[in-house]
Amino acid sequence: MSHTIAGKEKLLTRVKKIKGQLGSIEKALEQEEDCFKILQQISATRGAIQSLMSEVLDGHIKEHLGNHVSEEVREKEIHNLALLLKTYLR
Amino acid sequence: MSHTIAGKEKLLTRVKKIKGQLGSIEKALEQEEDCFKILQQISATRGAIQSLMSEVLDGHIKEHLGNHVSEEVREKEIHNLALLLKTYLR
Amino acid sequence: MSHTIAGKEKLLTRVKKIKGQLGSIEKALEQEEDCFKILQQISATRGAIQSLMSEVLDGHIKEHLGNHVSEEVREKEIHNLALLLKTYLR
Amino acid sequence: MSHTIAGKEKLLTRVKKIKGQLGSIEKALEQEEDCFKILQQISATRGAIQSLMSEVLDGHIKEHLGNHVSEEVREKEIHNLALLLKTYLR
Repeated sequence: MSHTIAGKEKLLTRVKKIKGQLGSIEKALEQEEDCFKILQQISATRGAIQSLMSEVLDGHIKEHLGNHVSEEVREKEIHNLALLLKTYLR
Repeated sequence: MSHTIAGKEKLLTRVKKIKGQLGSIEKALEQEEDCFKILQQISATRGAIQSLMSEVLDGHIKEHLGNHVSEEVREKEIHNLALLLKTYLR
Repeated sequence: MSHTIAGKEKLLTRVKKIKGQLGSIEKALEQEEDCFKILQQISATRGAIQSLMSEVLDGHIKEHLGNHVSEEVREKEIHNLALLLKTYLR
Repeated sequence: MSHTIAGKEKLLTRVKKIKGQLGSIEKALEQEEDCFKILQQISATRGAIQSLMSEVLDGHIKEHLGNHVSEEVREKEIHNLALLLKTYLR
């Protein structure tokens, strides 16, 4: 079973929390709040997304490239991962 | 008028779009979709948040540190900006 | 006096240390060392450069945009800083 | 043969170029040059290191996790890669 299924509830909680952070930014913009506070909120939200990326990537590497995977799948996953990291780390 | 007020509608559109991206990640997790597709979605969302940060920061620097601002405000804003960047660039 | 002059010796020490880290990467490549060790060294060097950037940027914001600066200089520095961050945070 | 050996000359050229960029930053600090120019140089150097990291990581994933690797090695390499990315993406 994939790690995004095994860890589904925990990951969903994190995604919902980040959605909530964006809801707060939306409200802050609408209520014309202090710009610096909005920047702080965006900065925290970016931190939360990066941390989510790191978590899902960690599971992905451990689950989808390991020894229990077929050679065909591994080849495809390695290609995909290399491509994704090229974009992400640019 | 602050740039987050002048550019309010455009910024709100971006924030709502990012909230939509998180909604898609949520749905993908719930429907137990392919893990790699979820990673791609998280990666794109992080890109969108960074781009929003860059946009709001650009306006912030131009509007809140400039010559039209009182010395007292500028001093506070410089202190705040330096602190924010220290965290953001860590 | 600019912060890169006041803090000159400390900054030079950091830059020389990073140059030394690159010298180690060079040697590791030449001696065909384990690839993972090379990745770790590159990762640490990138951390050191980001930390240097953060340090110099902090001084820059505090020294070159503050109340003691002429309006003309501030306008130019704000324009420059906004541009630099756009590239750096991309 | 490892990718850091196969691509040795190209990688060495890049590492030497980055060392040269740091040499320029050193000289600029010593000659007390304009602080903004120093920031631009640090920013460019960080870009070059990130690009080197991305290149070596790409080769690493393709060469050290693939189907030609023993199960024992793969297990170790997956563990190492996951750890490295956790630190790098923090």
